Amino acid sequence: MLDERAANTGELSITEVSKRSSRKRFDTIATEEPLEIRVLKYNNADHDWTRYSLAVTMRTPGSDFELAAGFLFSEGVVRSKSDIVKISYCADPREKQQYNIVNVYLADEVSFEPSKLSRHIYTSSSCGICGKGSIDQVKAVCWSKPVGDFKVTFDKLSSLSAKLAASQSMFNRTGGLHASGLFDIDARLLSSREDVGRHNALDKLVGSLLLKDRLPASGTILLVSGRASFELVQKAALAGMPFMAAVGAPSNLAVSLAEEYGITLVGFLRGERFNVYSSIERVEF
Amino acid sequence: MLDERAANTGELSITEVSKRSSRKRFDTIATEEPLEIRVLKYNNADHDWTRYSLAVTMRTPGSDFELAAGFLFSEGVVRSKSDIVKISYCADPREKQQYNIVNVYLADEVSFEPSKLSRHIYTSSSCGICGKGSIDQVKAVCWSKPVGDFKVTFDKLSSLSAKLAASQSMFNRTGGLHASGLFDIDARLLSSREDVGRHNALDKLVGSLLLKDRLPASGTILLVSGRASFELVQKAALAGMPFMAAVGAPSNLAVSLAEEYGITLVGFLRGERFNVYSSIERVEF
Repeated sequence: MLDERAANTGELSITEVSKRSSRKRFDTIATEEPLEIRVLKYNNADHDWTRYSLAVTMRTPGSDFELAAGFLFSEGVVRSKSDIVKISYCADPREKQQYNIVNVYLADEVSFEPSKLSRHIYTSSSCGICGKGSIDQVKAVCWSKPVGDFKVTFDKLSSLSAKLAASQSMFNRTGGLHASGLFDIDARLLSSREDVGRHNALDKLVGSLLLKDRLPASGTILLVSGRASFELVQKAALAGMPFMAAVGAPSNLAVSLAEEYGITLVGFLRGERFNVYSSIERVEF
Repeated sequence: MLDERAANTGELSITEVSKRSSRKRFDTIATEEPLEIRVLKYNNADHDWTRYSLAVTMRTPGSDFELAAGFLFSEGVVRSKSDIVKISYCADPREKQQYNIVNVYLADEVSFEPSKLSRHIYTSSSCGICGKGSIDQVKAVCWSKPVGDFKVTFDKLSSLSAKLAASQSMFNRTGGLHASGLFDIDARLLSSREDVGRHNALDKLVGSLLLKDRLPASGTILLVSGRASFELVQKAALAGMPFMAAVGAPSNLAVSLAEEYGITLVGFLRGERFNVYSSIERVEF
């Protein structure tokens, strides 16, 4: 399942303006393109694959198969690597290959109900929603509380941001990308992914773990480059990550979800200070 | 169409950690809750309103009616204030009011086709997508190129970020919110909106203009607090905004769209320097 596409930055002529001068120069810029994620399920009656278009996301090309796998995992469509038979780009034989559609072929034993994917998909449901409702929804698909019986020192936690930044090859060139990084409990970077979208960066990371059969990600520390929103904590919870740190602020609903799942949530992880919002027992003083 | 809900921040007990000490304190945190946006269309055959659930967005409560109106405008469902008969919270009489569902009642003359809202909604379309496809899509609903025959000086442009930041009452308390601000050509702030989501902040701003019958927003300058993504430029183009500045970086597709619509796109607007990506004629040297 190799990912062939990697044109994730481009060059552009821009004008840089300061108070005293302006000059034309070439600038490296982050690529953003739509990716359509499709699920295919074999239909025994028709002896053919039935195709469902689940989502179109604006993403930075690269790691597209991981993105598709991680998205489907977060949405509860797949639970393990064995749920996926094959991932490929969908090429229209009449057109130049665009690498903007990914097909994920589900295994026979995966039950797939498009009507249940209400969040991203048209629904005529009349039932109300509220914060609690959303938390109940994640509970339904979350297998168990993330596992992580460890403590992280102040120095190790403080070191994470710089390590993630050093791994952000695209951000360093464009200044315009989010990142998600996974660390072991000794603060060694295991893996990181970048994208113009915060959700995509984490979906790519989770998808890469899924495709290596390394989920749940027990005993790990996740760092996200932006804010800790409800949806990012939800993705971390589903992936079994017990410790989540964010460079930015969390929302109230993100904190509630982290508390409920025993996830340590750290915010404003910048330099020599941070805030702990839940499960502080994993922070060593 | 008053918006009753404004519990957009809350208090939480957190632990602030630095190298030498840790202390418990109360912190103000941004509220994030799901909002379901529904469209209601009168069905003459049934003599009743038919209800369609279009989207669930994670948003900061407050300006919910503007958010719904702006979202529907960006999606091409409504074009003007007169397309909307009424906006209200949907209250289930059996439950405590949650203010998490907004009903938008469409005027009789608005043609509404749920199947066309492919971006956010389930679709079984088999046609491919690519950057060009998305740009064609916005063209189809965009009435014309945004109008703005003006020039902005370096000093005025440089002053925008501080003015927007000063208006961000929630960000100043929580450090966790995005903002969109609209300025006149003399760099006076006309209006601003905040949200945990970048798209929501701009939808709220556009919705507020729509509900005041002030679209298209010709002769204005838009400033967004984060990156300039394709979708944000798309919203600005639809709202007729000829000048868009971002505190963060743009993506390649955002630049393409701005170029095509003659929108001046400025990025990295921080302090004493910025980059101009398109339609530089509106920047005065």
